Amino acid sequence: MAIAKMTVAELEKFLHVEFPQAFSAGDISIDSADGASCLLRQRYSDQMLRPGGTISGPTLMALADCAMYVVLLSAIGPVGLAVTTNLNINFLRKGSPDPIAHAISTYSIPNA
Amino acid sequence: MAIAKMTVAELEKFLHVEFPQAFSAGDISIDSADGASCLLRQRYSDQMLRPGGTISGPTLMALADCAMYVVLLSAIGPVGLAVTTNLNINFLRKGSPDPIAHAISTYSIPNA
Amino acid sequence: MAIAKMTVAELEKFLHVEFPQAFSAGDISIDSADGASCLLRQRYSDQMLRPGGTISGPTLMALADCAMYVVLLSAIGPVGLAVTTNLNINFLRKGSPDPIAHAISTYSIPNA
Amino acid sequence: MAIAKMTVAELEKFLHVEFPQAFSAGDISIDSADGASCLLRQRYSDQMLRPGGTISGPTLMALADCAMYVVLLSAIGPVGLAVTTNLNINFLRKGSPDPIAHAISTYSIPNA
Repeated sequence: MAIAKMTVAELEKFLHVEFPQAFSAGDISIDSADGASCLLRQRYSDQMLRPGGTISGPTLMALADCAMYVVLLSAIGPVGLAVTTNLNINFLRKGSPDPIAHAISTYSIPNA
Repeated sequence: MAIAKMTVAELEKFLHVEFPQAFSAGDISIDSADGASCLLRQRYSDQMLRPGGTISGPTLMALADCAMYVVLLSAIGPVGLAVTTNLNINFLRKGSPDPIAHAISTYSIPNA
Repeated sequence: MAIAKMTVAELEKFLHVEFPQAFSAGDISIDSADGASCLLRQRYSDQMLRPGGTISGPTLMALADCAMYVVLLSAIGPVGLAVTTNLNINFLRKGSPDPIAHAISTYSIPNA
Repeated sequence: MAIAKMTVAELEKFLHVEFPQAFSAGDISIDSADGASCLLRQRYSDQMLRPGGTISGPTLMALADCAMYVVLLSAIGPVGLAVTTNLNINFLRKGSPDPIAHAISTYSIPNA
């Protein structure tokens, strides 16, 4: 079973210091992260909406990219230099209470 | 040989009307679009930077998504309801004058 | 909850008739398929092995493609013309009792 | 400009020794490989055909995977342990003289 190497509080502190531009606005918050999965919450703004009031694709891409990094950090601890090498996202349906996108991602983790 | 069904001026006007949130800030401009390829220019802000001064992954994802839509519009004409169904992006290297990412994308185009 | 529209016996019969080249050799058999997931069994031959005795990537790609089609058929019933439009596969580790690859796939289903 | 580190003759010899199962049947031959691109030729058999006489998806996946390995070898020289980590393929149209699929792939290359 996965064991988190960082608590949610440690994750948020790390992300605010390492990625002040992306996290300081408080648009994304971490509900949980356990070393194998995480649950994030995104506050949306008008800029993220598309005609019809749906959330834009790039907003979901950025959220997915962030979620991958959060769960990675929770699994391996604070590794600022880990970088996304691939992200593949399928949009399933318009915004609703159902899952609306499925993303997979690959990270490159530098050797210690 | 591909023939553009919309000029750059028509594309920019269409995008400003249909996607005011995304395009009104003038962050992205269209240099060319010919029905088979396009060249976009992205103005970056601090929010798009990552440690080391590189452009963030989500910024490149959003730019790729936009480029796919622009070239699609230039190929088939104004179709506001076309939606991205898949985007796959590989990050090749840090920001430099070389290509730094390669993205492919699939669109669903509604029947007329 | 998903309900299968074809039984395993119906699936195997359909696949043998529609895809005699691929299924007649008995290399792949269906353990279960319930409209949302399926479990296939692949019999391997020397041609599928790579140095070190691991299963080759293309063997796993073909198995994933087949699994996607089987679960699709079990969900929507016999649609011979459904075609894969995208397959994305990540190889996780060499052959072992653990998961060794993760694949996602998109199908185009013709209107009736 | 790319310079090939292996000739076509060296590539075919290497592949026959390292991957006898996959290459010994002569199904695939190398027309050219220059360190940046390659051109392969696939001999098809009945097993590779789908209803309507089109080439099956898995056949194209295997060919794409092979092409990626051939061009990689031609770029970096004989590295038997390089392994595919990701392959993403989009099927564009049924078999014809046009391009019928577009694949991208990622390799992991072990340190010397």
